[in-house]
Amino acid sequence: MSFDLDPHLAGDTLPLGDLLLSRVLLVNDSRFPWLMLVPRRPNMSEFTDLPPGERSILMEEIAAVSTALKETTHSAKLNVGAIGNVVPQLHVHVVARFEGDAAWPDPVWGHGDREPYQDQAAEAFKAEISQRLAFV
Amino acid sequence: MSFDLDPHLAGDTLPLGDLLLSRVLLVNDSRFPWLMLVPRRPNMSEFTDLPPGERSILMEEIAAVSTALKETTHSAKLNVGAIGNVVPQLHVHVVARFEGDAAWPDPVWGHGDREPYQDQAAEAFKAEISQRLAFV
Repeated sequence: MSFDLDPHLAGDTLPLGDLLLSRVLLVNDSRFPWLMLVPRRPNMSEFTDLPPGERSILMEEIAAVSTALKETTHSAKLNVGAIGNVVPQLHVHVVARFEGDAAWPDPVWGHGDREPYQDQAAEAFKAEISQRLAFV
Repeated sequence: MSFDLDPHLAGDTLPLGDLLLSRVLLVNDSRFPWLMLVPRRPNMSEFTDLPPGERSILMEEIAAVSTALKETTHSAKLNVGAIGNVVPQLHVHVVARFEGDAAWPDPVWGHGDREPYQDQAAEAFKAEISQRLAFV
């Protein structure tokens, strides 16, 4: 079976590029600097669905995305989460958080309505993130 | 420097045992089957603060705790999150979720008030989880 990005995830995000295992996406919500990793494997819902070697790769890709996001935003804190109650396809959120941001100190998931990027702002942010990641 | 469990985390949880890297705790909220891993390293706040080898171990410990929780509860979905906006010491939540539970489909973090376990219920649940984990 081949990998297809869940259409809900596709609709909520803008594509950045592919790491060895994961597709990296920008969540289209300008309230928070918010990236997402989706391992390009079919029928994955939990970390435990991946074989151990790929879990280690995923963890290193989470770390690479975390570092790129922190270097770009100088955020105080990162939030990392794999939830999937609504969209079961395995996807990992990495969100840069700041004291006083729109949801602080609560998590961003399910908080208010998304505010899509203006085109230029998304492109500039994507470029800054992308130059810090080794896309295949 | 030695590792000390953050007092807020200690106050919200009941101890289960130590894996190679992480202390495993039961969050004292009977609304959700909810475990927590805390790597026993001082001054850790993000996954990226751990060296890569220990990140891989942490991922495997998250997987082991996930499997133990899923086998014990037969949950539909797991939620895994490292947030730390309030308590910066690196800690990873692993929560078993069910359609129709007290927060479904939202995340559990920041949702309503915790309902502590009755002593016997906590001990029974801890015993079921512990027999599925290799504590050091």
